[in-house]
Amino acid sequence: MGIRTGQAGAQLIDVPQPTEISDDQVLLKTLYTGICGTDRGIISGQLKFARPPAGSDFLIMGHEGLAEVQDVGKSVKTIRRGDIVVPMVRRPGGCLQCRIGRQDNCEDGDFVEAGIRGKDGFMREYFLDEEKYSVKVYDRSLGRLAVLTEPMKNVVKSFDAYRTVTRRSIAQCGDGSFDCRRATIAGGGPIGILFAMIFRSYGFDVQLFDRNDHLGKLSAVSEKLGIDFKVSEGTGLPPNFIEGLDVFVDTTGSPSVIGRGLEGLGHNGCMVLFGTSSGGGYQLTGDLITSLVEKNATIIGTVDGSKAHYIEALNYLSSWKGMFPGVLEDIITQEDDPENSISALNTKVTGEIKRVIKWADQ
Amino acid sequence: MGIRTGQAGAQLIDVPQPTEISDDQVLLKTLYTGICGTDRGIISGQLKFARPPAGSDFLIMGHEGLAEVQDVGKSVKTIRRGDIVVPMVRRPGGCLQCRIGRQDNCEDGDFVEAGIRGKDGFMREYFLDEEKYSVKVYDRSLGRLAVLTEPMKNVVKSFDAYRTVTRRSIAQCGDGSFDCRRATIAGGGPIGILFAMIFRSYGFDVQLFDRNDHLGKLSAVSEKLGIDFKVSEGTGLPPNFIEGLDVFVDTTGSPSVIGRGLEGLGHNGCMVLFGTSSGGGYQLTGDLITSLVEKNATIIGTVDGSKAHYIEALNYLSSWKGMFPGVLEDIITQEDDPENSISALNTKVTGEIKRVIKWADQ
Amino acid sequence: MGIRTGQAGAQLIDVPQPTEISDDQVLLKTLYTGICGTDRGIISGQLKFARPPAGSDFLIMGHEGLAEVQDVGKSVKTIRRGDIVVPMVRRPGGCLQCRIGRQDNCEDGDFVEAGIRGKDGFMREYFLDEEKYSVKVYDRSLGRLAVLTEPMKNVVKSFDAYRTVTRRSIAQCGDGSFDCRRATIAGGGPIGILFAMIFRSYGFDVQLFDRNDHLGKLSAVSEKLGIDFKVSEGTGLPPNFIEGLDVFVDTTGSPSVIGRGLEGLGHNGCMVLFGTSSGGGYQLTGDLITSLVEKNATIIGTVDGSKAHYIEALNYLSSWKGMFPGVLEDIITQEDDPENSISALNTKVTGEIKRVIKWADQ
Amino acid sequence: MGIRTGQAGAQLIDVPQPTEISDDQVLLKTLYTGICGTDRGIISGQLKFARPPAGSDFLIMGHEGLAEVQDVGKSVKTIRRGDIVVPMVRRPGGCLQCRIGRQDNCEDGDFVEAGIRGKDGFMREYFLDEEKYSVKVYDRSLGRLAVLTEPMKNVVKSFDAYRTVTRRSIAQCGDGSFDCRRATIAGGGPIGILFAMIFRSYGFDVQLFDRNDHLGKLSAVSEKLGIDFKVSEGTGLPPNFIEGLDVFVDTTGSPSVIGRGLEGLGHNGCMVLFGTSSGGGYQLTGDLITSLVEKNATIIGTVDGSKAHYIEALNYLSSWKGMFPGVLEDIITQEDDPENSISALNTKVTGEIKRVIKWADQ
Repeated sequence: MGIRTGQAGAQLIDVPQPTEISDDQVLLKTLYTGICGTDRGIISGQLKFARPPAGSDFLIMGHEGLAEVQDVGKSVKTIRRGDIVVPMVRRPGGCLQCRIGRQDNCEDGDFVEAGIRGKDGFMREYFLDEEKYSVKVYDRSLGRLAVLTEPMKNVVKSFDAYRTVTRRSIAQCGDGSFDCRRATIAGGGPIGILFAMIFRSYGFDVQLFDRNDHLGKLSAVSEKLGIDFKVSEGTGLPPNFIEGLDVFVDTTGSPSVIGRGLEGLGHNGCMVLFGTSSGGGYQLTGDLITSLVEKNATIIGTVDGSKAHYIEALNYLSSWKGMFPGVLEDIITQEDDPENSISALNTKVTGEIKRVIKWADQ
Repeated sequence: MGIRTGQAGAQLIDVPQPTEISDDQVLLKTLYTGICGTDRGIISGQLKFARPPAGSDFLIMGHEGLAEVQDVGKSVKTIRRGDIVVPMVRRPGGCLQCRIGRQDNCEDGDFVEAGIRGKDGFMREYFLDEEKYSVKVYDRSLGRLAVLTEPMKNVVKSFDAYRTVTRRSIAQCGDGSFDCRRATIAGGGPIGILFAMIFRSYGFDVQLFDRNDHLGKLSAVSEKLGIDFKVSEGTGLPPNFIEGLDVFVDTTGSPSVIGRGLEGLGHNGCMVLFGTSSGGGYQLTGDLITSLVEKNATIIGTVDGSKAHYIEALNYLSSWKGMFPGVLEDIITQEDDPENSISALNTKVTGEIKRVIKWADQ
Repeated sequence: MGIRTGQAGAQLIDVPQPTEISDDQVLLKTLYTGICGTDRGIISGQLKFARPPAGSDFLIMGHEGLAEVQDVGKSVKTIRRGDIVVPMVRRPGGCLQCRIGRQDNCEDGDFVEAGIRGKDGFMREYFLDEEKYSVKVYDRSLGRLAVLTEPMKNVVKSFDAYRTVTRRSIAQCGDGSFDCRRATIAGGGPIGILFAMIFRSYGFDVQLFDRNDHLGKLSAVSEKLGIDFKVSEGTGLPPNFIEGLDVFVDTTGSPSVIGRGLEGLGHNGCMVLFGTSSGGGYQLTGDLITSLVEKNATIIGTVDGSKAHYIEALNYLSSWKGMFPGVLEDIITQEDDPENSISALNTKVTGEIKRVIKWADQ
Repeated sequence: MGIRTGQAGAQLIDVPQPTEISDDQVLLKTLYTGICGTDRGIISGQLKFARPPAGSDFLIMGHEGLAEVQDVGKSVKTIRRGDIVVPMVRRPGGCLQCRIGRQDNCEDGDFVEAGIRGKDGFMREYFLDEEKYSVKVYDRSLGRLAVLTEPMKNVVKSFDAYRTVTRRSIAQCGDGSFDCRRATIAGGGPIGILFAMIFRSYGFDVQLFDRNDHLGKLSAVSEKLGIDFKVSEGTGLPPNFIEGLDVFVDTTGSPSVIGRGLEGLGHNGCMVLFGTSSGGGYQLTGDLITSLVEKNATIIGTVDGSKAHYIEALNYLSSWKGMFPGVLEDIITQEDDPENSISALNTKVTGEIKRVIKWADQ
């Protein structure tokens, strides 16, 4: 059983269990897959870059996965039967960045992504993968929370990039901590909450806003994190959330949100662009350009993450279980069987933050 | 009640509870203090840099602390009564590094350290401190494990320095992870185990050795961590532990261990010097120098840590509770009342890894 | 004699030669000052941040200077009578960045700038300055070319920031050089040419465009540099200059130029914002945001430079005298006496790249 | 004509001019080659790693070259007939570092080096090379000084590594420059002088010492550079040259010099190991280890350089012609014809700094 997309919509299909395994492969039994905006964009046909594997006329969906190792090939060394792993999404091409395992920075676009472009994904009961793209989960107590590793690895890479670019000046405060620094996060989806958590865990004063509160869930999560939450109204952003900022993270892709955020950057401030969209617009003025120059501002677009970021993502998830009790659990708002997930794949419901599909018991 | 040292040995003394509190201060009730080699070196008079506060003829001991906030001054904003905090050891002087909160990198030696040089420490029931030197513990589930924050912040700073200096070349493997990199840790004290844990948590192949197994405890911990442990015999180091190394971390301070480790560094390898000692010796030869040059080797001495490193230390401890179940608990091998701790301060017992003093219930 | 500005325009005034000198001061005889867009913006009243020193009702102009040391105070050690120096523009306030000599990254705006805001400038025959703000010129053969140090230090800082932020991925090519990387520079003023030179000197394939050729001067300079030059027509940018770029440097401040440049950034590309303006506009769309995200793009605003950047600026100028014969000389297109410079300060003439005022023979 | 080495000593041999040229090759006419300690070590049979190309029983010497392009293959784009180039020494293997053009950091030793190991060198009238290993000299006014590019690229890489590793703390002074920082260079050979120049050009207070003054030449050069020079006597190093150092650069490979330098490192100090040797020894003590730890010291071994470092090396040489008049000229103390160079290759004469062989007129 698996979930495919072809011309339109998602369909449940029969997917046979693999019977042969190469020496460097692992046979994986899917436990959970997550659903995100990219999945819905593919299914609705809005993402032009989505494509089936070469020679196939459909694509098996799913890029956020969690799986149990059923069997391993002869030359597999670091992974054993019974291990829990997170499969990586993007697989390298031949460019300079890909050659060193940094396909997340691929410089010629010659890569494939499981469940997105050119490679079947993880929404099926069993699949084969290579050892080197299977990231082992050491903390078994994470349970289904480990399905958040894939979205989290994006956040880890973004934070890594943030740390690298802010070496332009002294990023920390006068006491050597980040306690005096302010970070505003636009958008309270799973990625936005994970961004709020990472900046909070380093001591930043964090602010989060969204167009709605997801049935009070964002307020509740924010209270647990010790951060401020506000609902933005119309095209207006919460005023004091966008002044003198050290960091502004956009997860919405909205040009007007980003434009307003850029206006709010303080000296040596950094804008992290993660969200994407196709609509909207914002007038970039000479005054805003001047402000970015005078303030030594930095803006970074960031996508995907490397294997090291997956590994660190798991470390963070383990850490936050204790540090922010209940918050990771709050992020997963729905769990479905594969059979019941087709409609979920088509439409996001009110109050949904992260919806997951359960394929098997752990 | 508190523990002081003067000319020789440690003594239990009466320490009155502070009655007045300044606007920027917090009143702290000590919960736990850890005992380390530095404490014993001070008490035995072997550490020449140890000194009482100016104007005092004794020093209250203790630099590894965990405390509960009893009261806060009027201008204190980030900390409340009932919070748990870790007090920082080193306090800044006026040099360039200190001015930005990096007294751990102090360039003129003009600093004080609580319980070590020029400032009374945390081995007393109550003490006053400044808000900015009190690092809040968010993860209450850590319990007494949070007393490991102070030693851990050293490890975090070392790892930070390791990451910085290894930007000289590509530190990761061809798959973007550290899975192919080997790290050997010399010395299985608390610091050595914490080093093993941090490198392990990033995916390194880790090896640990010590002169003895501490009653089998190091073997047990290593098994839980999935790393190799060996007992070194005489002056000999475990042979395959010191070949083609990407990282060698010394926590022993022994010149012969370090010298042998330097010989084992591979290309672009990094030696982390953390341990200190006053004895021993190793003949640095032209052949070894040549090897370090040809291999683009890096050696870093590293001491103390900044406030950001304390904060990250707490993040790691939270993470490792789940990732390496029981290991942090295994590190704390003894717990005493203050009254029973005087002899513990004088002598390390067989099988001891980290001994702590309990001052009050949490 | 000196040049001041008050409410409107520039005036020649008497400025008495300083008669007393403090222990840490140097008495400087001005040799050359450069004129730039900022000077003209101040004189025409368009730059709102321009202001006289506290307590004065006018400002002595000039922030690009070159001077000869006439006398030194008793405690001055590194500078002697007869030395040639470049005086620094920006002087630190009390913030974290300023405290370590990085007032170019000042985080609270509490600084002064000679000839611009709150401090008299260098357009006068003699002035006193502190030793630490006087950057010594070692290469006497530079002659008046050393007056380009001040604009060049901006370029050095920008390049330094570029190198820092592009550590996000591998910036070099597969052969370890920058030979395969493309950089486009928008605007052929002195700063634009200096940017072209720095990227060219590191092996980049460089492209320069401007709205006009400055009487053929930009074509001539570009030929000497081995770079491509094109005149942009109307609002159109030269098409192949803005595709698949590794670097786009804007010195115009024009939102439409910048917007088009952002569209042309390739994977891991970097936009350097240096120019400022108050007019124009560009519609930032969701598609452009998405492209910046998918490409891991970086945008940096950058202003001013630190003392180390002044020192490196002089190194580069020395280097380029031999490497690009005649080009630095070509940048200085006019030289006036102070008496004849008032009209020059008001209006830029056709074919002008950098105009300088000569105050005394070297 | 060319110079080979086989079992013992150097011999002049006939080397035929290449007659065919592949598409990606350039035909080079040698202008100058430099002689260094490595050449003499190979000829005397002391360097065990030296070896002829596979299948040959002798090695053509020469790794410091300067050549004129005689002809180019059909696909060569960036280099033309008549250009002057510096050929690179080390050619990549297949490891991770080599794959991105950083064979200078090769992690498996699988590389060849022209004139040293596994590849014929540049001491012959004509040779073929690939375009990508030929670094173009833009500054024709350098003349024969450009033969210093190869040794200089080592210095550039070392300085690059120094800048990278010293990001551990603030490397600059309180005024943002390096003016307060002290660097001591051990050994006044060509490499030592070039190290003195690079640190001097960034404003460091530089000290140079050697066992002798090379007939007064080091004193003369030091005076021109504005640095201190002293002759070390017996095993003693100049006392005030090794105290509170920010940088100590060793070009001698002598363990006792290095050991004494390590003792002299100040807080956050950096030891750069470049020189190699096979003799001598120094007792590494616990006290020295403790000092390195307490001071957050860094020690880096560094060898070779990447193509970008060759390019920067040429920039520095151009810069220093004007900044330090006559010094680069002073480094080249002897010039011979190939016929007269055989004895020069065997023995270093008194007063020699860098000896070069002239193969053809430029």
